[in-house]
Amino acid sequence: MRETFHIKSRVCGILSCSVFRFITYHSEEQTIKFTDTMTPVTHDLVHTAQHLYGANNLAAQIPFGLYVFKRLLSVGVKSIFGVPGDYNMRLLEHMYDESLVDTAGDKLEWVGCCNELNAAYAADGYSRYSNEIGCVITTYGVGELGAISGLAGAFAESVKVLHIVGIVDYEVNDLGPEMRSHNLHHLLPRLNDSNFVGPDYRVYAEMVKDKVACSVEYLDDLETACDKVDKVIEDIYKYSKPGYLFVPRSFVDELVSTKNLIEKPTITLRECIEKSPVDEAKIVTEKILRLLNQSASPAVIGDMFTDRYGLRVELNDFINKANIVGFSTVQGKSIIDESSPLYMGAYNGMTSAPTVSEKLLACDLVLHFGIEKNEVNYGNYNFPHKSDAKIVELHPQYIRFYDNTTKKEEIYKGVSFVDILDLLNQSPELSELSFQYNSKFKAYTIEELNLDERDFGNDETSDITQGTLQKSMPNYLNPGDVLISDTGTFQFAIRDFSLPSQVKYITQGFYLSIGMALPAALGVGIAMRDYPMHHVWDVEKIPFGYEPKVILFEGDGAAQMTVQELSTMIRHQVPIEIFLWNNNGYTIERVIEGPTRPYNDIQPWKWTKLLEAFGDFDGKHSRATVLETRSQLENKLSELKYKDHRRGIDFMEVKLATMDVPSQLQKMIDAIVKN
Amino acid sequence: MRETFHIKSRVCGILSCSVFRFITYHSEEQTIKFTDTMTPVTHDLVHTAQHLYGANNLAAQIPFGLYVFKRLLSVGVKSIFGVPGDYNMRLLEHMYDESLVDTAGDKLEWVGCCNELNAAYAADGYSRYSNEIGCVITTYGVGELGAISGLAGAFAESVKVLHIVGIVDYEVNDLGPEMRSHNLHHLLPRLNDSNFVGPDYRVYAEMVKDKVACSVEYLDDLETACDKVDKVIEDIYKYSKPGYLFVPRSFVDELVSTKNLIEKPTITLRECIEKSPVDEAKIVTEKILRLLNQSASPAVIGDMFTDRYGLRVELNDFINKANIVGFSTVQGKSIIDESSPLYMGAYNGMTSAPTVSEKLLACDLVLHFGIEKNEVNYGNYNFPHKSDAKIVELHPQYIRFYDNTTKKEEIYKGVSFVDILDLLNQSPELSELSFQYNSKFKAYTIEELNLDERDFGNDETSDITQGTLQKSMPNYLNPGDVLISDTGTFQFAIRDFSLPSQVKYITQGFYLSIGMALPAALGVGIAMRDYPMHHVWDVEKIPFGYEPKVILFEGDGAAQMTVQELSTMIRHQVPIEIFLWNNNGYTIERVIEGPTRPYNDIQPWKWTKLLEAFGDFDGKHSRATVLETRSQLENKLSELKYKDHRRGIDFMEVKLATMDVPSQLQKMIDAIVKN
Repeated sequence: MRETFHIKSRVCGILSCSVFRFITYHSEEQTIKFTDTMTPVTHDLVHTAQHLYGANNLAAQIPFGLYVFKRLLSVGVKSIFGVPGDYNMRLLEHMYDESLVDTAGDKLEWVGCCNELNAAYAADGYSRYSNEIGCVITTYGVGELGAISGLAGAFAESVKVLHIVGIVDYEVNDLGPEMRSHNLHHLLPRLNDSNFVGPDYRVYAEMVKDKVACSVEYLDDLETACDKVDKVIEDIYKYSKPGYLFVPRSFVDELVSTKNLIEKPTITLRECIEKSPVDEAKIVTEKILRLLNQSASPAVIGDMFTDRYGLRVELNDFINKANIVGFSTVQGKSIIDESSPLYMGAYNGMTSAPTVSEKLLACDLVLHFGIEKNEVNYGNYNFPHKSDAKIVELHPQYIRFYDNTTKKEEIYKGVSFVDILDLLNQSPELSELSFQYNSKFKAYTIEELNLDERDFGNDETSDITQGTLQKSMPNYLNPGDVLISDTGTFQFAIRDFSLPSQVKYITQGFYLSIGMALPAALGVGIAMRDYPMHHVWDVEKIPFGYEPKVILFEGDGAAQMTVQELSTMIRHQVPIEIFLWNNNGYTIERVIEGPTRPYNDIQPWKWTKLLEAFGDFDGKHSRATVLETRSQLENKLSELKYKDHRRGIDFMEVKLATMDVPSQLQKMIDAIVKN
Repeated sequence: MRETFHIKSRVCGILSCSVFRFITYHSEEQTIKFTDTMTPVTHDLVHTAQHLYGANNLAAQIPFGLYVFKRLLSVGVKSIFGVPGDYNMRLLEHMYDESLVDTAGDKLEWVGCCNELNAAYAADGYSRYSNEIGCVITTYGVGELGAISGLAGAFAESVKVLHIVGIVDYEVNDLGPEMRSHNLHHLLPRLNDSNFVGPDYRVYAEMVKDKVACSVEYLDDLETACDKVDKVIEDIYKYSKPGYLFVPRSFVDELVSTKNLIEKPTITLRECIEKSPVDEAKIVTEKILRLLNQSASPAVIGDMFTDRYGLRVELNDFINKANIVGFSTVQGKSIIDESSPLYMGAYNGMTSAPTVSEKLLACDLVLHFGIEKNEVNYGNYNFPHKSDAKIVELHPQYIRFYDNTTKKEEIYKGVSFVDILDLLNQSPELSELSFQYNSKFKAYTIEELNLDERDFGNDETSDITQGTLQKSMPNYLNPGDVLISDTGTFQFAIRDFSLPSQVKYITQGFYLSIGMALPAALGVGIAMRDYPMHHVWDVEKIPFGYEPKVILFEGDGAAQMTVQELSTMIRHQVPIEIFLWNNNGYTIERVIEGPTRPYNDIQPWKWTKLLEAFGDFDGKHSRATVLETRSQLENKLSELKYKDHRRGIDFMEVKLATMDVPSQLQKMIDAIVKN
């Protein structure tokens, strides 16, 4: 039996690869066929496996728990976040099976978090960095409900998180009316007659189904259990939204066939995305090329779904080939390489930097890739274009053409921007385009913001202001760094950073749950260890030998929500540089309501003592500093920028004035209040 | 206008009283009428108010937000837990209205918590201590979902928590299709077509309705808004379960009538409990009295609902008047005064201490008051009685007679144990009963457990074991203390403590969500400040001038979940003694599965540094110690026991062996595994 396991796991292991690597392999083989239901790469591996080991040897039986983890490893999940509980520990035991190893020798790693909400945020961060699935495992009721807001955030921002909930087996084992009337711990008794009628075992699944998940499977039949695991993973890729698996404790030791693992050695994002009808995709592509040919000053906007569907590289390719200018949105920030001379800034309607607005409003054609419309990302629904512009919205589920002159629209539902971008990039016309951008179209720099010099203070001993930070922090970033920001005042300034090449910026820009970023940064750190340099596509732009930093910008109020996960960073030796903006409470709320109310105050903490308390007893893994003046900040930033080896945690408490906010935030609030 | 507010608030203030005080008032007036829909006490106050101020002056208009807080203050909510957010701050502003003060001069206090789950747990603790409503206020989506597991715990354990969620007003203001299609921050976009179709504003309400709440009102009509506020409060009392109010931001400044506040100056637990049909209540009471008359060795079991429906005093009265022996359950622990010679121990079926089982199994009649049947509380559904016993289950919604000899049952649905206990206590027959208990029926002492002396170590320098703790901790408690324990190994030993008079024991005994107790202890501490000595009914048994302690028993794994709320204890100067059982991880899980697995490990912390980091910078508000030997423990316990003034936080980290568990837990796990 063990022998057979090994064969299988090796087969699976071959494809435990990133989407990026998959794409490379794919294009080398030159076998793209849109009409196939089984992708060529899958077919090829099955063939290889059958050839090597013979079809009959392959249909082994393994415990279902092992199936779950082999499947996860096969789709690129190398670390799992969570908290153990009575109903999931039998499942967790299967993580330690010796056969669970991929070709690179990697095993699954368990990253135990302090609580479930933090674990969900960490899984979210893992996925946002890697574009693989982030997995969180919790226990029935007490655990899963703790995590639910993390899943809702992933749903709201289209992040690929799989939540596995270990559940009791009373119902599925059909133990008869007596046992089924038992109220079990972690479960909810009925409102009425609970001493006579048993609980609704599916109550938690019902809470999330069609609400915070694109796919929910409450496993109740071992025969179909493996298919359902695969189904949830496929749905997660298809929608780029979270999915749930409710796994009965009694299933995990039962034997199931490895058939699925052999027939589909992996499941990839690309194969799960709904294919566009070939004819329509062609029509749409030609229409766009025609519009480009007619345009004098076209623009690309790089928006959220471009990242989620793994098209970062492709979009930058398109921009470079077509020599077209690019803008980002709030949630699309950092998708377009901001070191490019073609990058024009972040556009957010009337709240944008005036120079950026001016440029976008001079574009007669706007190709908005991966468009996500919401209050924050779409300028509070005030997102104007040039009065005679033509706009193309490119989305995973539709392509919409809109003519600002005629006010006419044309929608192609079921056509995915994934295929369109592929087809555009294949078009030889692309490099023959030429546009007539006027002199306004200069590469974006933060100087365009005209930040008030008074904000920076008069000398080096001056206080640090949000103005100081807007000026200083971008310079501290190096190409390839990964920047995570929590929801808060300074988040609104980052939009207008001009980021070095291939910096990946991660933030919860729409769901805006404070406290998310700290555990998410743990997830990002783990993902960067599992997938080193995964976000870098042009290594030549990264300084030779440079190890990209993980940087967290965190507010004090936000940090108090989820602070204990610092200890998990210490435990897993995640190298990170943390800037704690200490502005004495919920400043982002103060500017909306109750500036001096106690409800916006928080308890002052001695932040620099936390790392010692949380496990770095001898200070070997961390360094904590308080920064109060401009010169202290500048010195620390210089020291960190040029440090060549990342190790442990650098924690900087940065003192800010209570009511100091970046002007971008003030503008946005004014716009919301006005509406 | 201001004048009228004052009149009203004074009227409301009169009844911002505890249920206990209400009952006293009630019986003095001798005006009990079961058929009245308006209770006599309410009627009386309206009359007084009208007489004093004239009916016409009373129908003032106040902002709806103020109505909400006046209503809360009128039902005894003096402190509110929560976290501010964009959608609830306009509501919170009304907390600071000058007219919001009760007759004692008390205003509402906002207790800002570090995160929403902790706030929900704190509100739960507030209610468990005071038996008033615990109130938590959060914001749409990001806040409320964070809190949801706390609400589920309150639902599972029948705790009166009101969750107010501040929501957006787009839907209720009917802003037209364009605005309603906007995706707002904190909300969930649709799975499909989210760029065209707006969010489902009620998605979060749907998640909790009929699941974790007995009553959910999503306010969408200002006309009925006040009625619905009252309705949710009434339902919370009726079911002793949580309720939800979704309050649109745009409602809170709109004017509403104070009519409800005048007609019902308060809403009390008693008036909301469903009344039993008078005839059936009489039949049931007579039947019980007949059974008592026929019994030689009857027993009372004091169970959970007895506490939740405010019948602690009444049940002890009954026991004392009838001179009948009493047992507790796991969730009913401390309802029966354990200093009474009539207290026989905690019964939990076959996992009980053998001497306790022996006594219960010798009882020919068992009156089980406030019965709650679940896996934990009902001996894993193995809860035997004497083979020829008669059993009476007394519940808020039914009374059930069961004859163990004939196996026949008789159920009176809709008859409440509240009325039955009242009627029994009014019966003159009670004091004429006489029983023939044999010599076994001795008052319970912990010696009956026959704790293994070897567990205690050989000398004072020995390690502290769970055996040591079982022997030492009960002695450290004083009459009237309030003990809170988190879910964990030592929780299972507390069942068998013999508690001093009127100690109130609070734990989440069934939902068992680790981390709950630490924030709950904050809630208890605040409630004890709002309601000093509320749990004490016989002050003569409390040492003269003694200020009861709040004590928290907390596991290390549990503490890591919610630890930041220590800072809120510092902020609000909650006096508390905290014992942190440091056994290096999730010991309660290790004994079930994976004793040495990494998933059961946690990051070691320097626990004694936390209070400094969390705000007690100069150590003025707290003292932290590590206890490793028996003598260190004993010395600390003596020091704390006789300290006469409670001030600040005493934090004791108690080192325990990783796999040391109390024998009660081992028994229970064995029973569950067997079943």
